[in-house]
Amino acid sequence: MTRSGRPVTLFTGQWADLPIEDLAARCRAWGFDGLELACWGDHFDVSRAVTDERYCKAVRELLERHELGCWALGAHLVGQAVCDPIDSRHRAILPADIWGDGDAHGVRTRAAERMKDTARAAARFGVTQVNGFTGSPIWHLLYSFPPNDFGEIERGYEQFAEAWSPILDVFDGEGVRFGLEVHPTEIAYDFVTTRTALDAVGRRPAFGINLDPSHFAHQHLDAAAFAIEFADRIYHVHVKDSRKMLDGRRSILGSHLNFGEEARGWDFVSPGHGDVDFESLFRALNRIGYAGPLSIEWEDSGMDREYGAQDALAFVRHTDFPASALAFDAAMQRDG
Amino acid sequence: MTRSGRPVTLFTGQWADLPIEDLAARCRAWGFDGLELACWGDHFDVSRAVTDERYCKAVRELLERHELGCWALGAHLVGQAVCDPIDSRHRAILPADIWGDGDAHGVRTRAAERMKDTARAAARFGVTQVNGFTGSPIWHLLYSFPPNDFGEIERGYEQFAEAWSPILDVFDGEGVRFGLEVHPTEIAYDFVTTRTALDAVGRRPAFGINLDPSHFAHQHLDAAAFAIEFADRIYHVHVKDSRKMLDGRRSILGSHLNFGEEARGWDFVSPGHGDVDFESLFRALNRIGYAGPLSIEWEDSGMDREYGAQDALAFVRHTDFPASALAFDAAMQRDG
Amino acid sequence: MTRSGRPVTLFTGQWADLPIEDLAARCRAWGFDGLELACWGDHFDVSRAVTDERYCKAVRELLERHELGCWALGAHLVGQAVCDPIDSRHRAILPADIWGDGDAHGVRTRAAERMKDTARAAARFGVTQVNGFTGSPIWHLLYSFPPNDFGEIERGYEQFAEAWSPILDVFDGEGVRFGLEVHPTEIAYDFVTTRTALDAVGRRPAFGINLDPSHFAHQHLDAAAFAIEFADRIYHVHVKDSRKMLDGRRSILGSHLNFGEEARGWDFVSPGHGDVDFESLFRALNRIGYAGPLSIEWEDSGMDREYGAQDALAFVRHTDFPASALAFDAAMQRDG
Amino acid sequence: MTRSGRPVTLFTGQWADLPIEDLAARCRAWGFDGLELACWGDHFDVSRAVTDERYCKAVRELLERHELGCWALGAHLVGQAVCDPIDSRHRAILPADIWGDGDAHGVRTRAAERMKDTARAAARFGVTQVNGFTGSPIWHLLYSFPPNDFGEIERGYEQFAEAWSPILDVFDGEGVRFGLEVHPTEIAYDFVTTRTALDAVGRRPAFGINLDPSHFAHQHLDAAAFAIEFADRIYHVHVKDSRKMLDGRRSILGSHLNFGEEARGWDFVSPGHGDVDFESLFRALNRIGYAGPLSIEWEDSGMDREYGAQDALAFVRHTDFPASALAFDAAMQRDG
Amino acid sequence: MTRSGRPVTLFTGQWADLPIEDLAARCRAWGFDGLELACWGDHFDVSRAVTDERYCKAVRELLERHELGCWALGAHLVGQAVCDPIDSRHRAILPADIWGDGDAHGVRTRAAERMKDTARAAARFGVTQVNGFTGSPIWHLLYSFPPNDFGEIERGYEQFAEAWSPILDVFDGEGVRFGLEVHPTEIAYDFVTTRTALDAVGRRPAFGINLDPSHFAHQHLDAAAFAIEFADRIYHVHVKDSRKMLDGRRSILGSHLNFGEEARGWDFVSPGHGDVDFESLFRALNRIGYAGPLSIEWEDSGMDREYGAQDALAFVRHTDFPASALAFDAAMQRDG
Amino acid sequence: MTRSGRPVTLFTGQWADLPIEDLAARCRAWGFDGLELACWGDHFDVSRAVTDERYCKAVRELLERHELGCWALGAHLVGQAVCDPIDSRHRAILPADIWGDGDAHGVRTRAAERMKDTARAAARFGVTQVNGFTGSPIWHLLYSFPPNDFGEIERGYEQFAEAWSPILDVFDGEGVRFGLEVHPTEIAYDFVTTRTALDAVGRRPAFGINLDPSHFAHQHLDAAAFAIEFADRIYHVHVKDSRKMLDGRRSILGSHLNFGEEARGWDFVSPGHGDVDFESLFRALNRIGYAGPLSIEWEDSGMDREYGAQDALAFVRHTDFPASALAFDAAMQRDG
Repeated sequence: MTRSGRPVTLFTGQWADLPIEDLAARCRAWGFDGLELACWGDHFDVSRAVTDERYCKAVRELLERHELGCWALGAHLVGQAVCDPIDSRHRAILPADIWGDGDAHGVRTRAAERMKDTARAAARFGVTQVNGFTGSPIWHLLYSFPPNDFGEIERGYEQFAEAWSPILDVFDGEGVRFGLEVHPTEIAYDFVTTRTALDAVGRRPAFGINLDPSHFAHQHLDAAAFAIEFADRIYHVHVKDSRKMLDGRRSILGSHLNFGEEARGWDFVSPGHGDVDFESLFRALNRIGYAGPLSIEWEDSGMDREYGAQDALAFVRHTDFPASALAFDAAMQRDG
Repeated sequence: MTRSGRPVTLFTGQWADLPIEDLAARCRAWGFDGLELACWGDHFDVSRAVTDERYCKAVRELLERHELGCWALGAHLVGQAVCDPIDSRHRAILPADIWGDGDAHGVRTRAAERMKDTARAAARFGVTQVNGFTGSPIWHLLYSFPPNDFGEIERGYEQFAEAWSPILDVFDGEGVRFGLEVHPTEIAYDFVTTRTALDAVGRRPAFGINLDPSHFAHQHLDAAAFAIEFADRIYHVHVKDSRKMLDGRRSILGSHLNFGEEARGWDFVSPGHGDVDFESLFRALNRIGYAGPLSIEWEDSGMDREYGAQDALAFVRHTDFPASALAFDAAMQRDG
Repeated sequence: MTRSGRPVTLFTGQWADLPIEDLAARCRAWGFDGLELACWGDHFDVSRAVTDERYCKAVRELLERHELGCWALGAHLVGQAVCDPIDSRHRAILPADIWGDGDAHGVRTRAAERMKDTARAAARFGVTQVNGFTGSPIWHLLYSFPPNDFGEIERGYEQFAEAWSPILDVFDGEGVRFGLEVHPTEIAYDFVTTRTALDAVGRRPAFGINLDPSHFAHQHLDAAAFAIEFADRIYHVHVKDSRKMLDGRRSILGSHLNFGEEARGWDFVSPGHGDVDFESLFRALNRIGYAGPLSIEWEDSGMDREYGAQDALAFVRHTDFPASALAFDAAMQRDG
Repeated sequence: MTRSGRPVTLFTGQWADLPIEDLAARCRAWGFDGLELACWGDHFDVSRAVTDERYCKAVRELLERHELGCWALGAHLVGQAVCDPIDSRHRAILPADIWGDGDAHGVRTRAAERMKDTARAAARFGVTQVNGFTGSPIWHLLYSFPPNDFGEIERGYEQFAEAWSPILDVFDGEGVRFGLEVHPTEIAYDFVTTRTALDAVGRRPAFGINLDPSHFAHQHLDAAAFAIEFADRIYHVHVKDSRKMLDGRRSILGSHLNFGEEARGWDFVSPGHGDVDFESLFRALNRIGYAGPLSIEWEDSGMDREYGAQDALAFVRHTDFPASALAFDAAMQRDG
Repeated sequence: MTRSGRPVTLFTGQWADLPIEDLAARCRAWGFDGLELACWGDHFDVSRAVTDERYCKAVRELLERHELGCWALGAHLVGQAVCDPIDSRHRAILPADIWGDGDAHGVRTRAAERMKDTARAAARFGVTQVNGFTGSPIWHLLYSFPPNDFGEIERGYEQFAEAWSPILDVFDGEGVRFGLEVHPTEIAYDFVTTRTALDAVGRRPAFGINLDPSHFAHQHLDAAAFAIEFADRIYHVHVKDSRKMLDGRRSILGSHLNFGEEARGWDFVSPGHGDVDFESLFRALNRIGYAGPLSIEWEDSGMDREYGAQDALAFVRHTDFPASALAFDAAMQRDG
Repeated sequence: MTRSGRPVTLFTGQWADLPIEDLAARCRAWGFDGLELACWGDHFDVSRAVTDERYCKAVRELLERHELGCWALGAHLVGQAVCDPIDSRHRAILPADIWGDGDAHGVRTRAAERMKDTARAAARFGVTQVNGFTGSPIWHLLYSFPPNDFGEIERGYEQFAEAWSPILDVFDGEGVRFGLEVHPTEIAYDFVTTRTALDAVGRRPAFGINLDPSHFAHQHLDAAAFAIEFADRIYHVHVKDSRKMLDGRRSILGSHLNFGEEARGWDFVSPGHGDVDFESLFRALNRIGYAGPLSIEWEDSGMDREYGAQDALAFVRHTDFPASALAFDAAMQRDG
């Protein structure tokens, strides 16, 4: 059967404990079309890419040896620091040279510079898409008690725009686009906040969306409707799933429990095992003409990782299908 | 695994843009057991069949070359004209010689004659089943405003019986049966109207049903219960699916939008991708002993047609299973 | 308790068998604030109103004797004939002088003139709102089989605009507005068709909506969301309810059965006894600042009419509540 | 009809813009049994209560003049500051002398002292129950990204216990109990966190729960099951409601929108107008023998406040019923 | 408002601990129209009624003193013994003279004789309806393991018919009808078994149904559909409710727990507080023309009995409404 | 893909009409890992196993010839007789020498002795797990009417413990464990009764559970939650499914109809075709570390048995997956 033309890639972020050479060999064997390289572990090193002429070429050759393509970089962790209030949790996810002495202003400044370099590295590496997080100055004000000063919320969006506009200028200069993974803890995490965030940067084309439906399902959001509404800003798509397990005792808010705990009200699961309606999402992607990668971001605390990557790939191959080029009544109306 | 003995065919109506030779070759390659030939395009020509001795033999040989069977003809379009009020839409679906000058009475008369010929052609071709539409003198009175004169509704059923009885006499003479595809715009489209229509023709065996569950799901009707209630009139079965997408903004009535429009409240989809409960339907078919074809009528405005035909065939092969011949407690009660 | 300021009226259309004097006396006794007078029976006679100087004054005095207000006229039946294809059903609902010889063009022309007179009569009577139907040239094409020529659908909206624009000119001249009761069989019956119909008349203010949620519930439409989307065109509101009774045997389409038949898939019921979420609707009306009447259109084939009118009034009095004028955290933040 | 013996009170926190004398007069007229006095506005002044011998007596006499009882104080706002990270939002809800210069450590220390005084004031005033918030050092870590150090979560519970234990010692000394309103932004907001928080203070009887089901419904939590599980710590009950409005576009997380915004996924509503299953809750309260007040905390951004208070009171009177004292089959078995 | 003409009575079975004089006084005060007297306690003594000429007259006078009517007797407990296997549980519910020495055959014989006397007593007392249970020889075979011999099931229905036919002969002779309360543990407890049981006694008019919807809701049965299907055998109606509380831990089967235990999966509740759809039931009763009593059988282990009886009466008065005598479009079609 | 290590076996109880040699050959061909041998038919003969030295060896060799393992015996039928009231249904399921003259006491005594021998036979055959039923002295008291003496329910659990303790002593002596298949008609059939039954035998390790989710789904029970609650007593797992077909006419209680009848409210179906949530169950088994067999007990009255066995095996192979050994944020936090 002819498949939809969309390549299926693996986002390497959750596999950063494996050397990229090793992971690439496995992904090829499993049948992936390519990788979305994470900018951590040894998968894609932004600093070397912008300073060492040969680095990008070497990474590309490594991928080609395994017959794998690459259409996007994942720069989630450094992006998070650009407009978050900084605390000790960031130390664990940032490169040492970005964290430095941990002073908040310095961390944010260095993170912003690294994001500019990421655009430059992407261009040099030959991809036009960088996915990532933005952080948020206001996420911690989620539940308005003590009552929010909603002027502060508005200022939060402005701070986001101030912090990211110079970065996006570099993206524009390099011909690269940024795709925010709409996600709790980021400046945008649902329909309302995505509208506001897009407006805050003047709907400039440099700033779009990496649509990941696993962050929508537990919010009771419809990822297919999201794709339709923000059709011109869907730059990249993650295939990731989550599942609600609500029985009147488990809260949808998470109970300050880690992922994988039995008492959580929702959790991430391997694609096809959760609440995401992928068929509707893929139909919506067909409708808006999305032709980019379907990038599996695999995370399931109850399933073996290697089994899951293959299971997820088989699921996507089975569920994604090509759009129609025909109007049916036309066939019915033909007559000899 | 042993399969149920029911052959899986493709209804060719939505493929009339392809020459039958071409379509037959594809269907064989995809693994179909046979075709339900549409009486339009070049798939099955009723006029030639009744006038040209060699025509039926040639079609049969063509099918045999591709190792395909045929158990039914699809004569939906001409049948529609038998008791519809005629307007310009019919011109697009009727052969030129049936349409003629478009005078309503003449169109209906010629359509009725052609349906008689269809019975004759079927007999000559060696099939005993013709599926199709009947049209309806009263469909346009669906929503009773301005308030219906319900005597007019009753007269509509009588007109249907008057128009079809002479046709059914020819069917009886030829040993062929007609299967109405219960469907909105026809004289019968649900449980109530099927009961009334069957009564209107005196429950004569020549007039039965081509059960197509895709027309039931969006009416919130239970196709399995329909098969049980009308067990002795289920002469043929279409495998077609439809899906409701009701979000409080989309109407179940269709909004005068074409199939495939995003804002519709329901649409046809490839079998297994919609709301039809095929497992329940197939269990009901097992229960009533239906042994005829499962004929895939493929229509999905969001999926590539060739991909879809194969996907649908795989779905039917996977979902249809043979009935049990065993009472289980019997096995439990055996003892050495 | 202080109530919302919205008056509760009874639409007199379903009580046209009672003389208006009699009905007014009952409504006063039951506690209604006023009547929405139907332009049939002896309730409100448009012809006399435009020809007889004293008529409007007499009707007003009759209402005042019973301490009843009137904020709108209901001209549904004549309006229906303006752009419907005309058949025998219209004879039963039209005044003899509009029906005349029943020739379709003549009926439509006379109906259009009477609608202009209705605007004039309303102005003379002292109300600025006329509710009614428009009819539809394309309703009978609801289910696209034989396949619609969708150009014909577009032309249907244009015909509607052509037929109604001269009428609306008179409305503008008289300072009166028309409220289409969005309803199956009319040019607009859901979100999509309402958008198209409003656009067809250039969103001119003379043409708005009489929101009746009973026509939405069986279409699975959200009346509150409708009020929000079309906020600036909600000119009048009917309080009427309907109930789905779907058990897999009853179709949502109605089975060509009259209202009140047990086998229907849905039916009208007394307000509060059906599927309409009136609390959400009233909250939406509060939100958009709707201050007009809540006009009970009472129809329930399973309940005594007089019991029902009183039950419905009690339901509205109980369910409609005044909007808030306070932000709560403000109170919490105050401190001595 | 005999009612359950539970008094119905109004929590005065959302009415602090009204002088207590005025509010008391209204509540008496509306039929309340008493007030849960908020420790802000001029409703109950903790500082005066502990310093001015006559103050408590004067407040009590004021209530008695209006034939109102008082069984609990509400000290939510100051309590919040005891273990929250302090920011500008606290300034708006704290008395000036608690806020002082806004230095976080100082604010927390002064808030803790005021809570001790609140216990003393309650004892002097003659009530044994103080309701309120605790604040939380870890609420902002709700969604674990950047990934939480879960040791920090554990330390958060310890900090809470360290901050509140000296306060609870005073409560014990005064014979007064504290009821945490389990609520997002507090140390406990669901089943899991309530278990952990109760354990953190060694399940000492001084620390219990003010059960408010409006904070449970949007978390998909079952308030009746909560009452059963924590039966021995249900010290007080708020009657407050909330409603989910999830349509695939609105997020359950709130979208950083203020209460009352149309695009929120849930909001507070007047009791009986939302998702809380009060019948199940009241049956559970009967089962555990809860005999304290049902205290209406009224907040609904879409309803007039005075209308709502009366509507809520009528709802509680209608819904709360006395427990059974009879086993039914016993009656059936009696025989002459 | 005019009410439906159906009287509302209280079934006295669960109040047998109160002397009838006392209970009658209360019911009058609460507003009941009459009583359905239980044949136990001192409420109605069958033995005295058939032997003592003055007894029936005295009971009738007692009721008339309290302005209460009586349209039916409840003879559930003795009826149960007619075709049950007898064990120690029956001793607790039977009069001593029926139980005798407890020998099963003797108990069944004496119970059958008492049921004949009950028909005679009813006739003498002036009522034509006796409600009750039948018992069942096969109820304990509910779950077919060890696998049932289904011939034994058939024989069970025959035994029922043999045991009850002589009793029904006496009913016929007295002009009295028996209404089986369709109920688990009886020969009929759902649609299927009611059909079989009615057939077993040849659908003789002496044997009909006392429809009690509380026994249907936990079986997922539709009481309104039951009323429609068995319209000509609905002789009497109980108003009783039940509620499912299924959370994946509680079984629908009851767990061998007594009514009122928290861990049960369903329980009886006061009318209007459970899963029974009384509006649909009352509409169905209107449709079939049922004009007999609505007899409240009150049982709710979580609510005070006296509160509940009044709450139930108010609920019935509020929910029951008169049927319509009008076709609505008729009114619309009238025109001056 | 690496699979979970759990072997997939077929329980042979429903195949006892086939000689074990024949069945083993088929199972091997279909791809099963082993068999759970039923102690009836010629599959496993307990009497020969304890008397004939060579028997166990021969059976083991037969299995090895077909490369099949065996980890458990199924002794359901004899176990049932240990504490049931005995009637004619037991004759059909018991070996002739256990039934003997059918005297209840004798049957129960002989059944208990045979269960002891089953433990001995298992040990000799080299398996440590025997699955089966216990029977129940109180199952027939399921619906408490005539009202139960709940002391009798308690005595029922004691009788169970008295009857089974001597048997379990032999199990302990042989190093074999018994797994009750929690099931209606047994002493334990849901959460509540399992707790009570486990307590009745002092939670001794010899007595555990054979978890079969098909008996849970129609009771609305959550099999995954059951596995979590009774984690230390889940000794064996059946893969069997059931399906509810509730439409308001069919009762959840079964209507005294045999399995396979169309009018039943629920029925057994092939795994994956029913209501059991196997993914949740398998995740729970991963969580509790269950490493034993997944034993398909195949029963579906609407599907061919041989088709079904293979379909079920494919379903289990597809659905069961290995647990994770990774925490995901760990990978995210790694950085070069």
